[in-house]
Amino acid sequence: MAIKSLDDLFTHFLKDMYYAEKQVLKSLPGMIRKAETKELRQALEDHRDETEQQIENLEKVFDQMGMRARGVTCQAIDGIIEEAKEIMSEVEGGATRDAGIIGSAQAVEHYEITRYGTLIAWAEKLGKKDAIQLLEANLAQEKAADAKLTKIAEGVVNDMAAA
Amino acid sequence: MAIKSLDDLFTHFLKDMYYAEKQVLKSLPGMIRKAETKELRQALEDHRDETEQQIENLEKVFDQMGMRARGVTCQAIDGIIEEAKEIMSEVEGGATRDAGIIGSAQAVEHYEITRYGTLIAWAEKLGKKDAIQLLEANLAQEKAADAKLTKIAEGVVNDMAAA
Repeated sequence: MAIKSLDDLFTHFLKDMYYAEKQVLKSLPGMIRKAETKELRQALEDHRDETEQQIENLEKVFDQMGMRARGVTCQAIDGIIEEAKEIMSEVEGGATRDAGIIGSAQAVEHYEITRYGTLIAWAEKLGKKDAIQLLEANLAQEKAADAKLTKIAEGVVNDMAAA
Repeated sequence: MAIKSLDDLFTHFLKDMYYAEKQVLKSLPGMIRKAETKELRQALEDHRDETEQQIENLEKVFDQMGMRARGVTCQAIDGIIEEAKEIMSEVEGGATRDAGIIGSAQAVEHYEITRYGTLIAWAEKLGKKDAIQLLEANLAQEKAADAKLTKIAEGVVNDMAAA
């Protein structure tokens, strides 16, 4: 599809995020299984539930636009998730692997934070008021998840990994 | 290489960022050529110069560790850059393409922001004081570049793209 307008570009990025959130949902169980620190496992489990809600929120945005929810392959999230898998397989285990899992999960969060930020800025210019509310809800969850991971890294995991 | 300690993980992420910054440096000329808004072209040109400095800073960190600077393939940045190229080729041109370029460049910045944040947190635990200063310098530039792109999007490009 040729992208001719900001509205087309908004739709493209929305499809990209829909694909991205679904890939994140698929990748979380593997991270949860490998996480050894209780707080990290809990944070990833909570984020899996949030990701399900976020996918529903994106479906509502498609619905508002009179479109069927559909993803397009997002090479960025695929690369970020591939790298996360590589790190999980290369680190032997324990707190060091947990530190790697946190770093990887934060790369996912940051990608989503920037994409939701961009989508919200465009939605404002395009007058998509109902979409903004749903996208803001997703953005707030991603920022909170990122902050929680920083807290777990700095409060628990990094000290154990450096010991 | 099996990663056994936080120090090994720090080295791995450092090599990952060294590769990432070099790929970003290679990708910027293509973005600069396609950018139509003067402010955006200037911001990307400034960031190309900053990226060169950042690569030198990373080389200094390797040097402090008594290692030769060497990258490892970073699938995350490869995916982010591939997606940026795809967006540039799919958007016909004008302010809409510039909006896409900004969104893509901000995904790059956010990846670097999260990675430098992680490296700094680990460097603190590992007592790598000299490295922290260099990594903080790179992080500050990435954050400033991201903020500048937001300003250009909100102040100039998005309005033109939505018009």
